Amino acid sequence: MNDNPNTNPERVSKIISFRKKNPSADALAKGVLQGDKTALARAITLIESTNPKHSIQADFVIEKCLSVKTDSIRIGITGVPGVGKSTFIETFGKTLTRLGKKVAVLTIDPTSALSKGSILGDKTRMQELVKDPNAFIRPSPSGKSLGGVARKSRETVMLCEAAGYNVILIETVGVGQSEVVVHSMVDFFLLLKLAGAGDELQGIKRGIMEMADAIVINKADGDNKKRANLAKAEFTRALHLYPPKVNNWTPKVLSCSALEETGIHEVWELINKYITINIDNGYLDAQRQKQNKYWVLQTIEDQLTQNFYNNKEVKRQLDLLLKQVEQRKISPFKAAEALLGKYRDNIAKTKS
Amino acid sequence: MNDNPNTNPERVSKIISFRKKNPSADALAKGVLQGDKTALARAITLIESTNPKHSIQADFVIEKCLSVKTDSIRIGITGVPGVGKSTFIETFGKTLTRLGKKVAVLTIDPTSALSKGSILGDKTRMQELVKDPNAFIRPSPSGKSLGGVARKSRETVMLCEAAGYNVILIETVGVGQSEVVVHSMVDFFLLLKLAGAGDELQGIKRGIMEMADAIVINKADGDNKKRANLAKAEFTRALHLYPPKVNNWTPKVLSCSALEETGIHEVWELINKYITINIDNGYLDAQRQKQNKYWVLQTIEDQLTQNFYNNKEVKRQLDLLLKQVEQRKISPFKAAEALLGKYRDNIAKTKS
Repeated sequence: MNDNPNTNPERVSKIISFRKKNPSADALAKGVLQGDKTALARAITLIESTNPKHSIQADFVIEKCLSVKTDSIRIGITGVPGVGKSTFIETFGKTLTRLGKKVAVLTIDPTSALSKGSILGDKTRMQELVKDPNAFIRPSPSGKSLGGVARKSRETVMLCEAAGYNVILIETVGVGQSEVVVHSMVDFFLLLKLAGAGDELQGIKRGIMEMADAIVINKADGDNKKRANLAKAEFTRALHLYPPKVNNWTPKVLSCSALEETGIHEVWELINKYITINIDNGYLDAQRQKQNKYWVLQTIEDQLTQNFYNNKEVKRQLDLLLKQVEQRKISPFKAAEALLGKYRDNIAKTKS
Repeated sequence: MNDNPNTNPERVSKIISFRKKNPSADALAKGVLQGDKTALARAITLIESTNPKHSIQADFVIEKCLSVKTDSIRIGITGVPGVGKSTFIETFGKTLTRLGKKVAVLTIDPTSALSKGSILGDKTRMQELVKDPNAFIRPSPSGKSLGGVARKSRETVMLCEAAGYNVILIETVGVGQSEVVVHSMVDFFLLLKLAGAGDELQGIKRGIMEMADAIVINKADGDNKKRANLAKAEFTRALHLYPPKVNNWTPKVLSCSALEETGIHEVWELINKYITINIDNGYLDAQRQKQNKYWVLQTIEDQLTQNFYNNKEVKRQLDLLLKQVEQRKISPFKAAEALLGKYRDNIAKTKS
């Protein structure tokens, strides 16, 4: 029996059919659940679309896939540009597919819409992984708000899992707020760093080190090896000064060379150990429930504030009142009250 | 001329008059602006009151005091219970009043309403400072929400400054969210710690170390001195691994003994240096403006979400929908949309 989805003739014809016509939402959902890459890609395109008709179809597919319970592991990977994220993910991903895993690589890069992104959106970055039948690579959705990008990404994670991908790698750059968003949708958060004290840290945002479950010093090869070991010792010492995480996990520091493919297995072993411990003690499940709840409340709060700031009257008055606060003519709280009052009045007027 | 506010007969009689009758808001505002402690205390009580009549009076006093521009320094002090915050503040405060400063000590402890607080609310903790004519000590306002407590505290800071207090110490415990709130209303954030690796860190929340402008190792006395020096070196090394703050300040580590009154002057010198640098480069002023804006937007967002969660229909449905998310029957985003829809409908119905 030919199980390879890329050469099995029946599967190939199905892939072609997904490419050709506009498949129904029902057909797409079935395709996703069968692990069909093209169906998955098309379903994600529906999620990312701003066309209301597509939203309805996307919701249908999501609903069909939602109840699939999988044993997937979600891993967030962050690090400043230049740290070697692509090479790391390529090497790490290939290691995983060799172990029989199905790996999805997603990217969250809210800057991508404006500046073509800190993370290149195309697939040329991971030339080998992209050809791997057990890997699925999808660049960052575009979007004006990080909240919108996050929602699309989270729904994409869910579809990938329903399609049978059991390791989800979510890549982000360590700037702005995107790593907070990624942190709130993964089981394990990995920070990539380079050896060499001080300078290389410039780009990374404060607070990220405290979110990491592991720090991996990349490019521990050639002349850099000794420095990487020094950095490893230094970070290990530093992390011990932090309070322990709620699950009592002390973040670990490893070093690797994605280029020479050394130390990569150890990263996977560490993550595996973390996952095993935290499945057994119930933490992982509790964390996912907590993340779900967080997303419900976060979406609500985003929407409420978005409605507020998009209100015509608020837009007209906001800068004026902020100016008055700056000039000490009104207290911040009075300014807030005034704006809320104008918002209420404007809504009431619009309704009546 | 007798300038001492506690023995000057005219001032004494005024204090008595503030104690006796219900002074008008106008009289209170004048009292505050003259630096009268009793007027200040009464005005703060108005701020803290939930009586709407008092709110109007409080607003009047605040408005009168708002435009006073002072050169005050706002310092946040945090640390786990047992680290010696009270003794430190008592010693530090006395050092400052000896230097001719007027010192206000405020506390933000959102747990105080429920559990009598991690920080004792009474003034018995700082027995000498409380008698100091140039010190004003006020325990945490009570309140159900941290937002409410924060607002009261911020308005209190403003009144203290209008009353001539030029160093404002805001104390909080390093648990929950209160240190984030304090951080967003001070110029300098100080983390008190004890020597001895590991254990003493248990109680402090992750993320606090990254907010600190200085870490002070307290109880560096007797047998503890050597350990304190070790801890100082260790933390200094660790802080260098952090990315620098936006103002290029690298947080410093000092040690002191509040009990033996050693190292306290050095803390003040460090803060002074920080303030001088950051006045000159414009950072301090920019930060205060940023904090003002933060408080406008934060108050608005708090109010919007509070209105939402207090809505009868939302209250009825929230747990149900969260349960469905937990059971994978509905996605977090669909649940959020459903709740927002119910909220909109309920408001429209109530209005019509």
